[in-house]
Amino acid sequence: MKNNYNVRVKLFCLLVFIYAGSSNAQQSDQEQIKAFYDTALINGTGYNWLNYISNQIGGRLSGSVQAQQAVDYTKSQLDSLGLDNVWLQPVMVPKWVRGTPEFAYYETTPGMTTNVAICALGGSVATPPKGLKAKIVEVTGIEGLEQLGKKGIEGKIVFFNKPMDPTSVNTFDAYSNCVDQRYAGAMEASKYGAVGVIVRSMNLRLDDFPHTGSMGYGDQPVNERIPAAAISTNGAELLSTSLKLNPDINFYFKQNCKQFQDVESYNVIGEITGSTLPNEVIVVGGHLDSWDLGDGSHDDGAGCVQSMEVLNLFKKTGYKPKRTIRVVLFMNEENGLRGGNKYAEWASTGKEHHIFALESDSGGFTPRGFTIDGSDNAVQHIEAWKTLFKPYLVHYFEKGFGGADIGPLKKITNEKIVLAGLRPDSQRYFDYHHAENDTFEQVNKRELQLGAATMTSLIYLVDKYGID
Amino acid sequence: MKNNYNVRVKLFCLLVFIYAGSSNAQQSDQEQIKAFYDTALINGTGYNWLNYISNQIGGRLSGSVQAQQAVDYTKSQLDSLGLDNVWLQPVMVPKWVRGTPEFAYYETTPGMTTNVAICALGGSVATPPKGLKAKIVEVTGIEGLEQLGKKGIEGKIVFFNKPMDPTSVNTFDAYSNCVDQRYAGAMEASKYGAVGVIVRSMNLRLDDFPHTGSMGYGDQPVNERIPAAAISTNGAELLSTSLKLNPDINFYFKQNCKQFQDVESYNVIGEITGSTLPNEVIVVGGHLDSWDLGDGSHDDGAGCVQSMEVLNLFKKTGYKPKRTIRVVLFMNEENGLRGGNKYAEWASTGKEHHIFALESDSGGFTPRGFTIDGSDNAVQHIEAWKTLFKPYLVHYFEKGFGGADIGPLKKITNEKIVLAGLRPDSQRYFDYHHAENDTFEQVNKRELQLGAATMTSLIYLVDKYGID
Repeated sequence: MKNNYNVRVKLFCLLVFIYAGSSNAQQSDQEQIKAFYDTALINGTGYNWLNYISNQIGGRLSGSVQAQQAVDYTKSQLDSLGLDNVWLQPVMVPKWVRGTPEFAYYETTPGMTTNVAICALGGSVATPPKGLKAKIVEVTGIEGLEQLGKKGIEGKIVFFNKPMDPTSVNTFDAYSNCVDQRYAGAMEASKYGAVGVIVRSMNLRLDDFPHTGSMGYGDQPVNERIPAAAISTNGAELLSTSLKLNPDINFYFKQNCKQFQDVESYNVIGEITGSTLPNEVIVVGGHLDSWDLGDGSHDDGAGCVQSMEVLNLFKKTGYKPKRTIRVVLFMNEENGLRGGNKYAEWASTGKEHHIFALESDSGGFTPRGFTIDGSDNAVQHIEAWKTLFKPYLVHYFEKGFGGADIGPLKKITNEKIVLAGLRPDSQRYFDYHHAENDTFEQVNKRELQLGAATMTSLIYLVDKYGID
Repeated sequence: MKNNYNVRVKLFCLLVFIYAGSSNAQQSDQEQIKAFYDTALINGTGYNWLNYISNQIGGRLSGSVQAQQAVDYTKSQLDSLGLDNVWLQPVMVPKWVRGTPEFAYYETTPGMTTNVAICALGGSVATPPKGLKAKIVEVTGIEGLEQLGKKGIEGKIVFFNKPMDPTSVNTFDAYSNCVDQRYAGAMEASKYGAVGVIVRSMNLRLDDFPHTGSMGYGDQPVNERIPAAAISTNGAELLSTSLKLNPDINFYFKQNCKQFQDVESYNVIGEITGSTLPNEVIVVGGHLDSWDLGDGSHDDGAGCVQSMEVLNLFKKTGYKPKRTIRVVLFMNEENGLRGGNKYAEWASTGKEHHIFALESDSGGFTPRGFTIDGSDNAVQHIEAWKTLFKPYLVHYFEKGFGGADIGPLKKITNEKIVLAGLRPDSQRYFDYHHAENDTFEQVNKRELQLGAATMTSLIYLVDKYGID
């Protein structure tokens, strides 16, 4: 009886200890996370960094002077944070240049022209120096080409006019469902003898901004490549209506963009070395390059400064991670992914063990949660922290895409790494994406800083508790 | 044994029936709600209504020509929806007029002046015709008055400079915690002999827009009332810094606002009569009046058109409610609440039974959920529908404030009514609230329409299943 009693008392004490331990852990997590959010909102630096990147530097297309300025600036800022290591990782990147502004009109009868706003798609070839004029034929998406066939397309410009689906509450789904016309439209249309393509901008709004973005020719010989441009959504609607009234319209456009030889650029990297598990690495990042039309504030200046802020908030709140926390500002996400590939390649040669990578590349809007690319176990592991995010209205933890730049890390770790993507509110993202109006004024300081704190909190939890 | 078997079979069949029934109900709810969202996003009218109200009419201060134009316009639009009844409910409202633009500067040494952006607070008296010039003394909030005492305040202008707390993730909490200085600052400061007050704008951002809003004098005799103005947050920071360098600053301001006799205005009301329970009423609304500086798009043009859209979406999707669904566009929320009081007073004299009221008055941003002012039972009842909202990322269902205009309905129903408020994302709301930049361009169509669909879905569920 006495023994039994003793066992029970010991068990009770043990349970109290475990409970108190876990309760204390929870409380200290709550406090640490609150410190991240409060510091980000009162005293964060991300918004100021973004102001500089956007307003003093501007659009940062790979290989441009501005991309190099952004490398220099962000390195200097990381240098000033008192990190353990900051360095540049060389990477060769493509250099595509837009040249003078594009020009386009359509002609309903000879001499009766209507100008429309276009921009060359990234990677496109130029039109002939005097521009390109031809009949234009509308298709909804790539699937419309076969129906028209060579007979309906040969010698003409193809107008891809598949709109983003407004009923997708996650606007990235709407994007995924029609971006093929932008990326592969020219390549596919040229197989039917098209001489050029005009693609409706990936934008859920009706406005006058053409949205650029990458396109590719696959392994097409250079002399078979046809020029491709995006038209604003207002322009697309107008053109479509005009074509219904008069299918015999001529379309004219001129662009003199050009692909140069690859040039050297850099990923910008900084880290806090882990105190007890320095060889276990957690990566947080965004991409430093942007398109050239706006200043790339949402895409992806926001993700870069939020990633830098993660390390800054660790420093400012005095949190010393067990594992190595590394910020990587990837070069050339937009038109090549060379930075993401280079980092993964380099990581594969080292002795480090990458356990987790988080990317922010969906705009600087109010954070809603994360998508997690990992095993069901890993997803559940992260979901278990959901209550810690409740005070910050961060509620969305679902299996899904991590990020383009961190994707290549999967290969080198044999899928063992867990990837995650910050999921901000997505309603306004495609109003600005790859367009002239992706500017600093469209970023709200609080929304940006809340995103940074949300990322920091997740990185903190992964550092403290591991991921599997 | 046979009997037993029979009982079991019957029980099984019953369970299958119940399960299938509830599963069908759930499925039909899912489908109906999806129809609301899809229609709102593809084919909603709210954004167009808001465009008219904001850009063709503009700011709609109670008693103004614009307020009357908004009454006429919204009534005509409700008339066009094929509702069962549309009418105007007369209500006397205060008429306060800003007059010519305000002007202010501070003077560090005689002749060395710095202009700052101010605006009269709504309901304030004017300064003397030549303006008011006096020493100015800063306090953090109303609680700072006592410390300075009569000696430190008499004959001076009091500068209330309590900022909104940036760490409040719900920005309405930050607003509640310092709006007393705006509402009661003049009344309280005048007890210490102050001659005027300047109040830091209720804005989490640093910018140049002064934000107006209501203030009151209680039962102070007219000759003891002192003028009150808001200063932009940039102006407040500048003034505060200057006062630290030189406490002997003179402040000058001039405003010629005026309170006129009350005038007649209207609540705008429309309804779909319930098919089986016509005497049970569900109210949905926002307030039609706004401040005069911007065009009142977020506050509360958004809430008005969303409320109109609820009935529009019922009509467009062919849903016939059991109960009477009534949209009320309340007049005079901003500076009197006369419309809300009038509606409640009128409702108390009828034979109808008001079971639920929903208000949208927190801006046209992405909807996050609802706060519910009702019994714990009622809150749980609504929370049980949470999964139906998950596809739309609407996740926040908490006990809390319903809305100012619907508040008076509580009294007439002996607290039996359940009130609810739409909770959109709140990060940007106070960037625009009551200021010149609360304009149509700051409203995103998708965010607005998602809010309308979210409201419609809740009203649908309350109509279908009741609330208690």
